[in-house]
Amino acid sequence: MNVQIRQLATTAPDFEAEFQRVLHWAAETDHAIEQRVAEILADVCQRGDAAVLEYTNRFDGLGATSVAALELGRAELDAALAQITPAQRSALEAAARRVRAYHERQLEACGRSWSYRDEDGTLLGQKVTPLDRVGIYVPGGKAAYPSSVLMNAVPAKVAGVGEIIMVVPTPRGEKNPLVLAAAAVAGVDRVFTIGGAQAVAALAYGTATIPKVDKVTGPGNAYVASAKKHVYGTVGIDMIAGPSEILVLADGTTPPEWVAMDLFSQAEHDELAQSILLCPDADYIARVKAEIDRLLPDMPRRDVIRASLEGRGALILTRSMEEACEISNRIAPEHLEVSSREPGRWEPLLRHAGAIFLGAYTSESLGDYCAGPNHVLPTSGTARFSSPLGVYDFQKRSSLIEVSAQGAQMLGRIAAELAYGEGLQAHARAAEFRLDQNDQPGA
Amino acid sequence: MNVQIRQLATTAPDFEAEFQRVLHWAAETDHAIEQRVAEILADVCQRGDAAVLEYTNRFDGLGATSVAALELGRAELDAALAQITPAQRSALEAAARRVRAYHERQLEACGRSWSYRDEDGTLLGQKVTPLDRVGIYVPGGKAAYPSSVLMNAVPAKVAGVGEIIMVVPTPRGEKNPLVLAAAAVAGVDRVFTIGGAQAVAALAYGTATIPKVDKVTGPGNAYVASAKKHVYGTVGIDMIAGPSEILVLADGTTPPEWVAMDLFSQAEHDELAQSILLCPDADYIARVKAEIDRLLPDMPRRDVIRASLEGRGALILTRSMEEACEISNRIAPEHLEVSSREPGRWEPLLRHAGAIFLGAYTSESLGDYCAGPNHVLPTSGTARFSSPLGVYDFQKRSSLIEVSAQGAQMLGRIAAELAYGEGLQAHARAAEFRLDQNDQPGA
Repeated sequence: MNVQIRQLATTAPDFEAEFQRVLHWAAETDHAIEQRVAEILADVCQRGDAAVLEYTNRFDGLGATSVAALELGRAELDAALAQITPAQRSALEAAARRVRAYHERQLEACGRSWSYRDEDGTLLGQKVTPLDRVGIYVPGGKAAYPSSVLMNAVPAKVAGVGEIIMVVPTPRGEKNPLVLAAAAVAGVDRVFTIGGAQAVAALAYGTATIPKVDKVTGPGNAYVASAKKHVYGTVGIDMIAGPSEILVLADGTTPPEWVAMDLFSQAEHDELAQSILLCPDADYIARVKAEIDRLLPDMPRRDVIRASLEGRGALILTRSMEEACEISNRIAPEHLEVSSREPGRWEPLLRHAGAIFLGAYTSESLGDYCAGPNHVLPTSGTARFSSPLGVYDFQKRSSLIEVSAQGAQMLGRIAAELAYGEGLQAHARAAEFRLDQNDQPGA
Repeated sequence: MNVQIRQLATTAPDFEAEFQRVLHWAAETDHAIEQRVAEILADVCQRGDAAVLEYTNRFDGLGATSVAALELGRAELDAALAQITPAQRSALEAAARRVRAYHERQLEACGRSWSYRDEDGTLLGQKVTPLDRVGIYVPGGKAAYPSSVLMNAVPAKVAGVGEIIMVVPTPRGEKNPLVLAAAAVAGVDRVFTIGGAQAVAALAYGTATIPKVDKVTGPGNAYVASAKKHVYGTVGIDMIAGPSEILVLADGTTPPEWVAMDLFSQAEHDELAQSILLCPDADYIARVKAEIDRLLPDMPRRDVIRASLEGRGALILTRSMEEACEISNRIAPEHLEVSSREPGRWEPLLRHAGAIFLGAYTSESLGDYCAGPNHVLPTSGTARFSSPLGVYDFQKRSSLIEVSAQGAQMLGRIAAELAYGEGLQAHARAAEFRLDQNDQPGA
């Protein structure tokens, strides 16, 4: 049966209403999960290791006798690296190398301390320092992605984070050798086989065995997402991700089967994932649709792909490429492919997207694994105000100010005027004490 | 009566327990406020302007007939600028100039797009773009700080934000001319006299009259903080700030009255504000304590200062400056003064702080108003993982990837290997379609 994907045209009178239906996605708050997570967090905060051990044994079907026994040593990671195929190992290492190279450029471009002196000799600047310790959550079971280990650990490492603690659940003791091998390749410092809200709590509060971290990053299920939201403020978090999305902006010059497969590559993640094609060429849209129908039956994950395309997908005919760019800006997609012979013509018009893939050769999947940029990207329109995971997420900044004796004269008068205006007299007096008629330091 | 401020020494056997008591501060969740805020947000989301108007008239004691009537035009801002004293106006303008100059350096240092090509001709980079529209919350009434208007609006402006919408409540119609003048100086685009959770909701969801923004920044009371936490994800937010803090690290060479007044300048904000002195010289600590007792009676806000110092302040004798730096790192203070003759010797040891004020002349109050760096800083130890408000908070980044035909050959093989390993066949096929044996674009 052919795929029943929504087909819209911007010229249709009901376009706006249909488009709103395509866009609509609201993360529902599951109060039962929220409540359960709050209890687990409070319990781990209070009882530490004992609570982590109980939940892990219960939820993951283990029989561990201590949290220490849940730690995987370097030898186990190295064993995993030896166990995977040579092709897998060299692909992992090549991907890590490219991701590292990109994030090193990012560090150079925007991750260095800077300062300057003004004409009064006052020094002003910003000191950039890495976080002391971060925790990386890696899902276990079926959706265990070694690429996510690289995408979280490598930028942390490039930023200079002191210690990276990875947590990954092993339901019924099942370990994923590719995930452990990725941890070895990325240089993760310690690995605990724990998961769920209890793992997030252990990282955020610390226990006798698991060190408290400064930030928790990485994807997870609804319990993990809820736990991250709860501990936000006690520690930093990366983001709460919604379903994954791709938007393909096509001018009709890319082989239509390429675009069909790119739409599949997002749809196969999850039935809630969203794949949208924007194109000003009705004939081309029809050819992509024909490829969708032709290619789908051979895809192992065809049921997920079909459910995603029929539930949330759309093929949208636009008046022009310019209009397609405007609509793309309204969507602010996580992944945006500009599948065009002139990607450089359209890129300047694109203001909101997590990652922009330019030209027919740049399939999103290359970016997911090994092009270099991060695959952790803002979803659900949050690209309007947020950014890909990067080196900057594993650093923080401190302002630096060293006012000279001369600078204190000029600045003190301005500050005192404003402080009196705000009714903050101690602020004013502190500034006035530094004026020349007063004592000198060390006098 | 002398101030009963806690005095600790790191050599005391009970130091660790006492120190933990000093550090302890937990934001209590007020469930009644949370519930009320959730109702207001839902109501504004559903009824828009009508709800905003009702809450504003009720809570602020106004009789406005439309939300449009609550907007202040440019003429009113200019009138405020004409109404304040020439000294106030020139202080505001000088402060804005310096804050702008600093944030322009910040933009240069870390806010520009960048890209490079690898040896295969593949382009990789990051495009940095300003947010389209931001909302700035400014508290009304007594704690209305014009300096906060500058510190929020100027970096947004420097980042290139398209439109800045300011909201400020005017209880019983009372407008603060310094706040409105600051809005004029900073180049705020539109001002609405609304406040509380209803103002945050209006900015986050948009109403017929108030445009939806991409991010909400600025300080506020418990209702505003709760509302910001609720809308986080729908829009970006800056941070949820706790009580303000200063830590002074003194080597004993600064006039003790200067240090006493610096401690006051934090304490006068709020009874929950925290002022701590770390010093290896017991005699100097005694001199600062004497100045505290001598200076307090003359301070207009002495009651708040006393309550803050007695409730949360501490004078801590350390074994050395090195130990003082270690303790400072454990506290990760919002404001850190290194009141020393050799600030450059200690600065490299200081890893966690919102802003570092170096040398005796650099009173925190100069930084609060006009040195240039932002006064919106991470509190409650969150400087371990977060940063001052800056130009980067008003920008977001998009990854750029343009894979060359040649690059697609190498990257496609790596990506396919890893994608098959993760069981994501469409990802693998999309990469393989770009390998040479397949169709060429436009063929």
